[in-house]
Amino acid sequence: MKNSFGNAINISLFGESHGAGVGVLIDGISPGIKVDEDFIAHQLTLRRPSESISTSRREPDEYVIQSGVYNGYTTGAPLCIFIPNTDTRSRDYTPDLPRPSHADFTAREKYHGFEDYRGGGHFSGRLTAALVAAGAIVIPALREKGIYIGTYIKEIGQIILGAEDHTAENLLAIAESKYGLTDPHSIDWMHQVIEHARERTDSVGGVLETAIVGLPAGLGEPWFDGVESQIARAVFGIPAVKSVAFGAERINVMRGSEANDEFAIKDGKIVTETNHSGGVQGGITNGMPVVFRTAIKPTPSIARYQKTVNMATLEETELNIKGRHDPCIVPRARIVVDSVAALVVADMLTVRYGSDALSEKTKK
Amino acid sequence: MKNSFGNAINISLFGESHGAGVGVLIDGISPGIKVDEDFIAHQLTLRRPSESISTSRREPDEYVIQSGVYNGYTTGAPLCIFIPNTDTRSRDYTPDLPRPSHADFTAREKYHGFEDYRGGGHFSGRLTAALVAAGAIVIPALREKGIYIGTYIKEIGQIILGAEDHTAENLLAIAESKYGLTDPHSIDWMHQVIEHARERTDSVGGVLETAIVGLPAGLGEPWFDGVESQIARAVFGIPAVKSVAFGAERINVMRGSEANDEFAIKDGKIVTETNHSGGVQGGITNGMPVVFRTAIKPTPSIARYQKTVNMATLEETELNIKGRHDPCIVPRARIVVDSVAALVVADMLTVRYGSDALSEKTKK
Amino acid sequence: MKNSFGNAINISLFGESHGAGVGVLIDGISPGIKVDEDFIAHQLTLRRPSESISTSRREPDEYVIQSGVYNGYTTGAPLCIFIPNTDTRSRDYTPDLPRPSHADFTAREKYHGFEDYRGGGHFSGRLTAALVAAGAIVIPALREKGIYIGTYIKEIGQIILGAEDHTAENLLAIAESKYGLTDPHSIDWMHQVIEHARERTDSVGGVLETAIVGLPAGLGEPWFDGVESQIARAVFGIPAVKSVAFGAERINVMRGSEANDEFAIKDGKIVTETNHSGGVQGGITNGMPVVFRTAIKPTPSIARYQKTVNMATLEETELNIKGRHDPCIVPRARIVVDSVAALVVADMLTVRYGSDALSEKTKK
Amino acid sequence: MKNSFGNAINISLFGESHGAGVGVLIDGISPGIKVDEDFIAHQLTLRRPSESISTSRREPDEYVIQSGVYNGYTTGAPLCIFIPNTDTRSRDYTPDLPRPSHADFTAREKYHGFEDYRGGGHFSGRLTAALVAAGAIVIPALREKGIYIGTYIKEIGQIILGAEDHTAENLLAIAESKYGLTDPHSIDWMHQVIEHARERTDSVGGVLETAIVGLPAGLGEPWFDGVESQIARAVFGIPAVKSVAFGAERINVMRGSEANDEFAIKDGKIVTETNHSGGVQGGITNGMPVVFRTAIKPTPSIARYQKTVNMATLEETELNIKGRHDPCIVPRARIVVDSVAALVVADMLTVRYGSDALSEKTKK
Repeated sequence: MKNSFGNAINISLFGESHGAGVGVLIDGISPGIKVDEDFIAHQLTLRRPSESISTSRREPDEYVIQSGVYNGYTTGAPLCIFIPNTDTRSRDYTPDLPRPSHADFTAREKYHGFEDYRGGGHFSGRLTAALVAAGAIVIPALREKGIYIGTYIKEIGQIILGAEDHTAENLLAIAESKYGLTDPHSIDWMHQVIEHARERTDSVGGVLETAIVGLPAGLGEPWFDGVESQIARAVFGIPAVKSVAFGAERINVMRGSEANDEFAIKDGKIVTETNHSGGVQGGITNGMPVVFRTAIKPTPSIARYQKTVNMATLEETELNIKGRHDPCIVPRARIVVDSVAALVVADMLTVRYGSDALSEKTKK
Repeated sequence: MKNSFGNAINISLFGESHGAGVGVLIDGISPGIKVDEDFIAHQLTLRRPSESISTSRREPDEYVIQSGVYNGYTTGAPLCIFIPNTDTRSRDYTPDLPRPSHADFTAREKYHGFEDYRGGGHFSGRLTAALVAAGAIVIPALREKGIYIGTYIKEIGQIILGAEDHTAENLLAIAESKYGLTDPHSIDWMHQVIEHARERTDSVGGVLETAIVGLPAGLGEPWFDGVESQIARAVFGIPAVKSVAFGAERINVMRGSEANDEFAIKDGKIVTETNHSGGVQGGITNGMPVVFRTAIKPTPSIARYQKTVNMATLEETELNIKGRHDPCIVPRARIVVDSVAALVVADMLTVRYGSDALSEKTKK
Repeated sequence: MKNSFGNAINISLFGESHGAGVGVLIDGISPGIKVDEDFIAHQLTLRRPSESISTSRREPDEYVIQSGVYNGYTTGAPLCIFIPNTDTRSRDYTPDLPRPSHADFTAREKYHGFEDYRGGGHFSGRLTAALVAAGAIVIPALREKGIYIGTYIKEIGQIILGAEDHTAENLLAIAESKYGLTDPHSIDWMHQVIEHARERTDSVGGVLETAIVGLPAGLGEPWFDGVESQIARAVFGIPAVKSVAFGAERINVMRGSEANDEFAIKDGKIVTETNHSGGVQGGITNGMPVVFRTAIKPTPSIARYQKTVNMATLEETELNIKGRHDPCIVPRARIVVDSVAALVVADMLTVRYGSDALSEKTKK
Repeated sequence: MKNSFGNAINISLFGESHGAGVGVLIDGISPGIKVDEDFIAHQLTLRRPSESISTSRREPDEYVIQSGVYNGYTTGAPLCIFIPNTDTRSRDYTPDLPRPSHADFTAREKYHGFEDYRGGGHFSGRLTAALVAAGAIVIPALREKGIYIGTYIKEIGQIILGAEDHTAENLLAIAESKYGLTDPHSIDWMHQVIEHARERTDSVGGVLETAIVGLPAGLGEPWFDGVESQIARAVFGIPAVKSVAFGAERINVMRGSEANDEFAIKDGKIVTETNHSGGVQGGITNGMPVVFRTAIKPTPSIARYQKTVNMATLEETELNIKGRHDPCIVPRARIVVDSVAALVVADMLTVRYGSDALSEKTKK
């Protein structure tokens, strides 16, 4: 369905940038997951623009759990989280002048002018706050089961920062880090690149790499609900994502003899000696780390005059987008990718092991 | 659902490589689409291994329409196409020795040994014949509406062949071409690369680029049923696909000022001056060509000894995969990508315009 | 999905009786539907217990539209309505003693004790307020298209009140009436039956009949998404519903020669002379009124000692349910059935005519 | 989706009465279910018209398993069963004259004349053969788990035959019986009623009652995927079904004090003393037998002149349906209801216990 994903657990996103707020409805979640409200707040903080790299709107993201939690645990009933908008400063809008590479024009085509255009409305990146809150419900339950997810910045603008170790420990450190980076030099590079763009009233994109370790073999389905299909579908839902790739970079230029992951026995378990496939064969996990890269385009809002048209009069004109600009969303996006990946994993576990898959299952 | 995709039109794949056959069930298709049986046969031919580049099994793909067509038109009832297997030569199988980078091991983990392992079973690329047949039902109806889809080989192994023009005319020529290439030099390069691999008992992958022109603006949904999400989910279902990317290559290294697609008026219509976004903003078509690239890993079957394990005894061993090998599936995969893209477009049109969207609608 | 229904429009219910509130998320709704806030409030009033027939909790049902509406029209983005709980008086609960014929025991079996048991939690009839609010979004749009829905009380306890005319005019009068009855004698009978039960600390059920007029022929699908399947699935979701029947009462005791609806031409249109089929053949509307009956069991909460067990100690015991009791929910349930029927109809229209099916489509 | 039902297991029906055949696709079925081909044939026999009560077409229903079974077990991949049509005797059709109370007219309205009208096409009761075959895959697996389903004739025409014991033993006897009846007097009555109708070139309907025993408590979902919602949706998909009712007959005329099912402890387990609720509270099983009744309208095909219209010329005319007539489908329908109920139960078990829920799980 339109604003939803998931087979056994259904995640539905709603809300607008300048309306009452943004929210998420999680249906099909196991009962008996301990809800860590501090962790939710912490994750929302990681998504918020950092003072040092962004001038964007910086509101506290006070969320409200509207249903589905009782006595600190999920009940199994639909769990709704709502994050009211507070900082929706009134401002002059020019709804007939679409911002280049935003969804203003396509929204008009689809919704015939009935769309809430303020600040991007339903298409705003602000809705990812609700996705992060949803992810924060399942991430602790996955960690309890030894499943760790970490997304780090692999490229920022034209700079390649490099890969990270795919150990549970390191992925946890990355997930908890402020920018999705553990190396101080990389953090420094990131700051320089973003600062360089900001000074030129421009913006940059980048590439995120995500690793998921601790997954059992046998998750996912053949064909259209394969792990790659499910992750790609959900991750492409995140604004500004233009590419999703699994396994070794440029596996397409390898020879088969290079790319193939040969099998071995390690500690009495079947493993592969390499992981060029990124943990998935035929859509199904093989127990090795699931690894994928997400390319993020540069933020389309830039403080410059750009050519646009008046959608009402069909005349060409110019537009200088006022207000807060974020020259790079990559460091914030990585927590959104983490969250989406966690929700997909939770869903796949529930399909395979049933509706109590994530539950502590014992009565409080 | 597991082996299905689509919202208004549901495409479900079934069958095995060495069982009775492979098939597809299309539910929700408009009534009144003219069914062109020659075109179905033609598309199946394009998917079949070419003598000049493959030693693979070469069976005629005689399909049977089991339901949903009457007097040469779709009826609107579920349309089932079945392609019986004929060339399933009996052979010695070693079901306990998984082939590296095939789905043998993950199938065992998921299905506990009940899977039909012969020739990859349900995971076999042979099932894409059914996908191609399904695509061949809707492609002529899309062309009637001015929508053209073409997938060409952009890279083969380490060789970059370059892009193609995204005009309806050229896309049609590509779609009808033998290898997804119109330039004789490119065809020559392709042959050389594949031959080079074959001689070394190795295999190569590549990158396909697909363009879809003639789409109305306003198709697709915000968030998880955006055009990118829907296409990526379906295309990642195709075996050997490891990456799906939309719009300009490496848009992530562009600056915002470079990447943004500014608006203009052309022939009284709103267009963008560039198409770095690949025809999609906020998940919704903007009327420009939808452009995406699909990276294909090298074929995992190679005529060499490779390390594997015995899944029953948990001992390390070696395996030399016997039988027919295809050193490169890229020229064949492009017709599968075309077909999947056509089915996704047909689905999006039906969601937007209703269940008669593809119908000729007049009684025969 | 679990707490949802609908194909093109997805309706998801959430919330608990004594939590923060109850809500509904509507995804896939056409843009450009005028939202009549007075009508929503009016419908919620009709669902609220009447002073004259109920002692139940009587809170004002102040709803909040959290998303999807802008400038008085639906935007096409997901529409979330939340109704905060205000009158959740603190009280002694006995969570280990399930109330007979409530969902307390089954909730425990399903959710292992993590369920919010207070006042029935997620199973509470209070969630139907959110369903009514959702229905109130689409009912005016359906009326604009000449589609009218009315549900009247056909039986109350052991008393048969009789049928009503299935004209648009009369159905509108029924829909707007206080009790789903237009005949003063019937209202009088209803009061007597309910009073009789209340005096004996007992409760009664009844039968509702719903008619939908103005539907185009050709809505619905063969087999499992037939009109009957879709309506039954949604209506059985309403608490206390135990039976759904279409067309002539006891059509199963008629002969074929009696039951068959013969065709005729009326005003140049094909009609049936009788409507024993209730407006549906093969799952698809024939343009005649869709007619169905919904049987409601007597309210299980009664002010008497009843046998129960202690779920923790597995001992037999007794329970006297304290608090507010409603000796009959039938007059309130009919507005819930109206709402659910309206949502199913809106969904079927959207499947058939596309995502703008309910839109005014002109820019405000 | 249109011709499908099920959440974790998806059942899709296809085919036409006079086309190539009818079929079913089962996606999401556990691997490792033993497939009993004799049992499938046996069930198909029970659905076939009996010589003694029907003159209908009597073809052998030779089915073909096209995918998803290997070495006598389900593989976990989609399982497709196809039943070719053999006895499709050529005949004069009058496609413009719709048969009263058949789907001819509604099919024309929906499919604009592209429908395969021969013998009812996709709406034909013949497709239930494929449903029965699908049910025959899961029924033995359910029995292995102690779950038994039996559907018996409760009323035939105007004659009430009475209820049956809801023990596993008796339900098995009913399921295996020729007519869904174990009492010779009832069989005699049934024959008399049907013969009476046939002699008068008329037809009769009836009421079936189904009991399902051995279900664990906790299956099903609150609201729209409750057990009642799921069963009703699927059962209303069966042609000629006009009503589905759960629990005690006419529970709506009982008082609450009568209708409520009080709890007790029996053999250390929580049970209810009565089962007026039919084994479901709040949409979820309570471990008592699930009981429902299905009302079947009289067969619409009768050997008499009936009024109809010419859909092309819009003129009133008459029609005498030629060919084979079945004066009562109730004895055959009961095996279809059994099958559908089994598929719904299998689906609910898979949602709750995961994708191996029905598997023997040990490698062959």
